[in-house]
Amino acid sequence: MADAERKLSSGNGRIDFVTEPSRYRHWKLSVDGDVATLLMDVDEHAPLFEGYELKLNSYDLGVDIELADALERLRFEHPAVRVIMLRSGKPRVFCAGANIRMLAGASHAHKVNFCKFTNETRNGIEDASAFSGQHMICVITGSCAGGGYELALAADHIILTDDGSSTVSLPELPLLAVLPGTGGLTRVTDKRKVRRDHADVFCTTEEGIKGKRAVEWRLVDEVVPNTKLDDVVKEREREFAQKSDRPADAKGISLTPLKRKRATDSVEYSSVSVEISRGERLATITIRGPDAPAPTSTDKMVEHGADFWPLRLARELDDAILDIRLNEFDTAAIVFKSAGDPKAVLAYDDFLRANSQHWLAREIVLKWKRVLKRVDLTSRSLVTLIEPGSCFAGTLAELIFAADRSYMLIGNLEGDNRPPAAVMLGKANMDGSLPMSNGLSRLATRFLGEPQSLENAEKAAGKTLDAEAAEKLGLVTFALDDIDWEDEIRVFLEERASFSPDGLTGMEANLRFGGPETMETKIFARLTAWQNWIFQRPNAVGEEGALRRYGTGQKAVFDTKRV
Amino acid sequence: MADAERKLSSGNGRIDFVTEPSRYRHWKLSVDGDVATLLMDVDEHAPLFEGYELKLNSYDLGVDIELADALERLRFEHPAVRVIMLRSGKPRVFCAGANIRMLAGASHAHKVNFCKFTNETRNGIEDASAFSGQHMICVITGSCAGGGYELALAADHIILTDDGSSTVSLPELPLLAVLPGTGGLTRVTDKRKVRRDHADVFCTTEEGIKGKRAVEWRLVDEVVPNTKLDDVVKEREREFAQKSDRPADAKGISLTPLKRKRATDSVEYSSVSVEISRGERLATITIRGPDAPAPTSTDKMVEHGADFWPLRLARELDDAILDIRLNEFDTAAIVFKSAGDPKAVLAYDDFLRANSQHWLAREIVLKWKRVLKRVDLTSRSLVTLIEPGSCFAGTLAELIFAADRSYMLIGNLEGDNRPPAAVMLGKANMDGSLPMSNGLSRLATRFLGEPQSLENAEKAAGKTLDAEAAEKLGLVTFALDDIDWEDEIRVFLEERASFSPDGLTGMEANLRFGGPETMETKIFARLTAWQNWIFQRPNAVGEEGALRRYGTGQKAVFDTKRV
Repeated sequence: MADAERKLSSGNGRIDFVTEPSRYRHWKLSVDGDVATLLMDVDEHAPLFEGYELKLNSYDLGVDIELADALERLRFEHPAVRVIMLRSGKPRVFCAGANIRMLAGASHAHKVNFCKFTNETRNGIEDASAFSGQHMICVITGSCAGGGYELALAADHIILTDDGSSTVSLPELPLLAVLPGTGGLTRVTDKRKVRRDHADVFCTTEEGIKGKRAVEWRLVDEVVPNTKLDDVVKEREREFAQKSDRPADAKGISLTPLKRKRATDSVEYSSVSVEISRGERLATITIRGPDAPAPTSTDKMVEHGADFWPLRLARELDDAILDIRLNEFDTAAIVFKSAGDPKAVLAYDDFLRANSQHWLAREIVLKWKRVLKRVDLTSRSLVTLIEPGSCFAGTLAELIFAADRSYMLIGNLEGDNRPPAAVMLGKANMDGSLPMSNGLSRLATRFLGEPQSLENAEKAAGKTLDAEAAEKLGLVTFALDDIDWEDEIRVFLEERASFSPDGLTGMEANLRFGGPETMETKIFARLTAWQNWIFQRPNAVGEEGALRRYGTGQKAVFDTKRV
Repeated sequence: MADAERKLSSGNGRIDFVTEPSRYRHWKLSVDGDVATLLMDVDEHAPLFEGYELKLNSYDLGVDIELADALERLRFEHPAVRVIMLRSGKPRVFCAGANIRMLAGASHAHKVNFCKFTNETRNGIEDASAFSGQHMICVITGSCAGGGYELALAADHIILTDDGSSTVSLPELPLLAVLPGTGGLTRVTDKRKVRRDHADVFCTTEEGIKGKRAVEWRLVDEVVPNTKLDDVVKEREREFAQKSDRPADAKGISLTPLKRKRATDSVEYSSVSVEISRGERLATITIRGPDAPAPTSTDKMVEHGADFWPLRLARELDDAILDIRLNEFDTAAIVFKSAGDPKAVLAYDDFLRANSQHWLAREIVLKWKRVLKRVDLTSRSLVTLIEPGSCFAGTLAELIFAADRSYMLIGNLEGDNRPPAAVMLGKANMDGSLPMSNGLSRLATRFLGEPQSLENAEKAAGKTLDAEAAEKLGLVTFALDDIDWEDEIRVFLEERASFSPDGLTGMEANLRFGGPETMETKIFARLTAWQNWIFQRPNAVGEEGALRRYGTGQKAVFDTKRV
């Protein structure tokens, strides 16, 4: 299921996104006061799939799953950490980038989703710096190539050792006929603002750039000789630590293992149920509202820790989405449902916002921002069904606006005596704390052409909106009565499953992100789309293509047409 | 050469972008006072390639070449025209969009470049409205589908006849498994700001939307019953004419045929020479500076008409670029050279800017803007060689900044006694009149990360900059002396020809456009890149794909993986 052509080294049928430091094979995480060190030390004998070795600190999705886990833990388990040092545990190499054998053998769907996940991890690094006070400094000793440099680009500050052999490079094009697709090209032009002709030279120079020129061309922030490296590193640690507003004396919470029970066609979490209907090519994700009232103090929230409902739910939803993305390629549509008390959801939202200065409340809202962005970027048709007994309020109402379409039932179906479907808006929908990649809230994006509708929606905050009211406010796509409900939705889902999966991916990638573009949308749209195109082209992936022939001693043969 | 798999109906070996109204097969252009009417009346028996018919006002590149020509003539030959009415000459159909048989049979390279050209034509319509005072009103009677609606979307105002059968639709996805790739998806979300769930319904509804709902969903501006159509049209013509600043009494100039002589490996224009070196996969475009001093009055400029050097050169360069794009797919790199007096070039620039209120001066600068954007968007590696005797000044210096790299010779080569290479900057490089698609000047884009360099460049305006000065100012990539010159350039060009053409296309599409995104860059990056991806996918173009099977009675068979 994970990748028809390949066997997972774990022997499992699915890629698992859950891990913890004691199980890391590729990273060493250590914390010393306000400085954490993430040491990349990839175990070449522990690839995610069988059939290749992770030489020279090259990585595959398994390596990145550990990195993503470590970064989450730094946020939640280590509130005192203000600086993350990213370094290599290998002597002469920083990181050789994504593993080429893995790429050459992976299915198109896996490659694309691997890149998407690694992109999200790197965006998360920048998010932690911008919003959470955890700044990353990358120290490069040895060669830092391709995806290795793309990882470095996500850091706030890049130090390159000036030893005559340490280099940065993006050799994807000359070596493999693909792009630096994990944000590389975009961060070079838009984050580091490298002059485009320098960028052209850099991206076509297999051996990379070292020393002073790397600084002059803005590729790194400083080059430092070995003799001075320790001093400079300490100095930078202090500088960046001073910029942080992380609390000095708070105690972290432990990100305990997810409660998760998997059967063939379902996954059961504490607050999330996933049902896979393979015949219909559907995944239904049902979210359960809080099972206890919002806490009365931040101490209580900290005490609940990973069990605190909003955090628990966010982690479970994230895992569910990733599982479908990478393990259920045949799923055409994800259906979101919910069950619970909308007011109780809003109460949690209000609690988090009333305490937005508290480090944990802040982290939880930031976590929701990332999870919802992950939903936005999931290449499945998204539909939200708002039924009696549901609790799409505040943060959870974002799943209505993240969906390609939403359907809301007017009144009740026969024999159902749960409260009629209601939508409730709250601060979470309006205060800018849950922006999309384009920098706007989902409501603002929705109403780009109708400022009055945005105002009306804002005025409706806190009100219990029935189907007709929600439709009138433009919050849902269709309000349907019990006569039409089942048929309309069935027809829609059948139609969705009948369309070209690729066409839908392309269409949704365009329709979901109206309005402004950011570095993030540039990465996911422009760069990713071109990379996906190239991942289909014989010049890269064909029998004679560069990706396939790499390391065989045979030169790639190219179709010379420029398209 | 144009398209290996297909034969041009003309019997020629190349697609020709030059035409004139007397040769139009598909459009009728008429002018009445300040209103022009562009009647789309496609001759189904005059396709560009053999093997399909252009039924139902469907179009191919040949139809769009005529449209582009008509729009150019409206700008230059008809200064009094303020409103362009876009209508169909067929009774029950407005336009069925791009011809499906043509798409199904075209090579990937042709499809991609066909879309690029049509995109440029539509952007040109919006440019005429925004900067040239020619506003387009589109009147839709009958069905307006796919590329037909995408053309309508380029207009300022869309009137849909309310007759129970006139519809707008984007049926590409449900019908053909491809995207509305000629700006459709982007203009729906970003120009018309259609709500994304409505857009989702619209883009998956084969039969389209009609009547009031089309207005409510922002798909058209008004629906008008047949009985009132004439009155409303007249009213809108007056409204939009009033917004225009076009001169009422100016006399247009005639866009006389280009002087062009083609041999197997070269094209000779009056101010442009193109040399094709097929072995090296190079096209060298040499631009010649003015052969007469700048005129002393706008009357003289009008008198020169299409022979006026800046206009003549712009048209010739445009034709040369298009010819390479669509007919020379094997060309890896375009080398720009120039010959002439830099000061004479600046004198023309200064003349045009001193008279920027004159309609023709304005049109000529706008033409250069479009031509230079066309260069930016050309998927060939671009390199500018600045040699002794060259005239890269002002507008022509933009070709240095549009290039992926530039090389400038220090001093002279042995035996050459032309003046040493010099670059001169002028107002054209700084006044914002020649922006890239991202809305910034090429210099501003170049120096995104170095505001001081931008200031220094601006201060150097009017100075004769030799190679070392130009390199120091960051204006050229490399300044080389006579010892290195030939070898360095040869090695670079050989290297470029050795890389994957697709990889280069993707890399250049990312590196060329740092900084802000606009609707235009969204169309060319996000939308185009996804469409290109889909144009490679078996679900669209495979034997069992939707594009191939359309009209055969057989249903497409899809790989159900969502990627």
